[in-house]
Amino acid sequence: MLFSTVMTRILVATLALLLLLTDISAQDKTIAERLGYPRDAKLLIVHADDLGMAHSVNAATIKAFESGLVNSGSIMVPCPWLSEIAAYARANPQADLGLHLTLTSEWTSFRWGPVSSRDKVSSLLDKDGYFRLTESDAAAQADPKQVEMEITAQIERARALGIQPTHLDSHMGTLYQNKALFEVFLRVARSQKLPVRVAKTWFSRADFLPSVLTQDDVYIDRVLDINPTVPPQEWARFYSDALKKLEPGVTEVIIHLAYDDAEMRAATADHPDWGAAWRQRDFEFFTSDTFRKLLQENQIKLITWRELAKLIK
Amino acid sequence: MLFSTVMTRILVATLALLLLLTDISAQDKTIAERLGYPRDAKLLIVHADDLGMAHSVNAATIKAFESGLVNSGSIMVPCPWLSEIAAYARANPQADLGLHLTLTSEWTSFRWGPVSSRDKVSSLLDKDGYFRLTESDAAAQADPKQVEMEITAQIERARALGIQPTHLDSHMGTLYQNKALFEVFLRVARSQKLPVRVAKTWFSRADFLPSVLTQDDVYIDRVLDINPTVPPQEWARFYSDALKKLEPGVTEVIIHLAYDDAEMRAATADHPDWGAAWRQRDFEFFTSDTFRKLLQENQIKLITWRELAKLIK
Repeated sequence: MLFSTVMTRILVATLALLLLLTDISAQDKTIAERLGYPRDAKLLIVHADDLGMAHSVNAATIKAFESGLVNSGSIMVPCPWLSEIAAYARANPQADLGLHLTLTSEWTSFRWGPVSSRDKVSSLLDKDGYFRLTESDAAAQADPKQVEMEITAQIERARALGIQPTHLDSHMGTLYQNKALFEVFLRVARSQKLPVRVAKTWFSRADFLPSVLTQDDVYIDRVLDINPTVPPQEWARFYSDALKKLEPGVTEVIIHLAYDDAEMRAATADHPDWGAAWRQRDFEFFTSDTFRKLLQENQIKLITWRELAKLIK
Repeated sequence: MLFSTVMTRILVATLALLLLLTDISAQDKTIAERLGYPRDAKLLIVHADDLGMAHSVNAATIKAFESGLVNSGSIMVPCPWLSEIAAYARANPQADLGLHLTLTSEWTSFRWGPVSSRDKVSSLLDKDGYFRLTESDAAAQADPKQVEMEITAQIERARALGIQPTHLDSHMGTLYQNKALFEVFLRVARSQKLPVRVAKTWFSRADFLPSVLTQDDVYIDRVLDINPTVPPQEWARFYSDALKKLEPGVTEVIIHLAYDDAEMRAATADHPDWGAAWRQRDFEFFTSDTFRKLLQENQIKLITWRELAKLIK
């Protein structure tokens, strides 16, 4: 073997090793690093769900956006107050607004149904022609092809109204209920080049997630949300403690804003969980000086889905 | 000719004449007389439109029903708050509730669409998939076959939710815009054995009405409704004057009730006519002691569509 041949082979092998190491390094990069922040940065998206559902939700969320402390939200296209929030989106094109893809209609006094023709998405509907009340029932009955048609129709309707969504998520988590629905969700999101709400911390409870996601998908580290076991008087303490203990990386705190007014009380009648008073408490905490100070004192930086969307190839 | 033959012929002719006179007499009977009241009775239906549209509408109208002074109303089946008013209807089967058949979605922040599959009633929809904004545009574009499908679907949906309608009318009068639509409306109403809102006084402005209606149809003498030329401070005076001058026969006063609250202000934003303050004024007058006294002092008796429906053969 000639010396030059040996040298060439060594050179090629070294290059291959370097490429491999670079690739491992890229894979090793945290989502914070991919966004251009240090590995130990604490990055937070403060995300209000359910826009378009009711006027009370729209009004409280827009007020919270104006505070600068709530900086992201997602819109329910099938809901009656879509036009009001679409007008806001057109007037505020910099706002970080995604779509809260909707396949359930969970309140009993106040309901909605599909954007698609009802006869084409019958597996999504209850006997009264509305979406089903619960995410488990919706997921159990849904034909994935009809889900794909309906969520695509919701995205198209939003775009037709001048909404340019920065991300997608799923009302009541229906699209994370099983692998078939999540595959539909991800396929639609990829075709739209939009990130979906997925947290690494969910991998343990939804074991199909890592098998469907690839390196090219953009997802966050964790989600923080309050739950019905927290009594009302502990609301601020729950969030304060969570923010003080916030780990590095990208966290999304999912909140539900509205006023505790006549419309919202009637809409959520007999459902204290995620009800009118719950949403007023979220509004009060996330527009408070307490929250502003917690962000400062704990070096928490607010980011949006708009930044995450830029990582999508 | 035999004497007996002549007598038989005279008898037959007399009987025929008597039958003819009886028939003329039946035709001559006023609607008040057909209901069993004297010809000079002043009979009034106090009718609240737009139930189901918004929580504020439902809440104010139910409150007004409880006063006993507002005694009839009609429900918009395609609207988001249908379930709330359907629950009221089931709990109050004696209530005089009809259907306010809906083919328009007139507000811009807050919208609704058909009960039927969208692809089957495309002539009724705007580019965003909602009903059109105005009754004239809706009527100009509507395919009567699609109208028949949609209003039948609205009646079926209402019945499925436990509403037993006592009468039918048409939101924003779309179904009175031309003869073809009115024929559809009347055909559906007859098949359901339900009276429709038609007033004799409308015959002059919608000349197709008498040609479509027959002796078997049940209709009232006149409708009383306020209009945007009346300034807010003249509201009570307008209604008071009209009630003092009320003519004998059956009159329906068509009112629009809601509270002047955040939901209603947002729903009717930029539309003072039939807006939130308008509806609060109607609520205040028609639940007032002034109205109660006017009824007493002017010998006005409240009746409902339920009584009129009994005249249908």
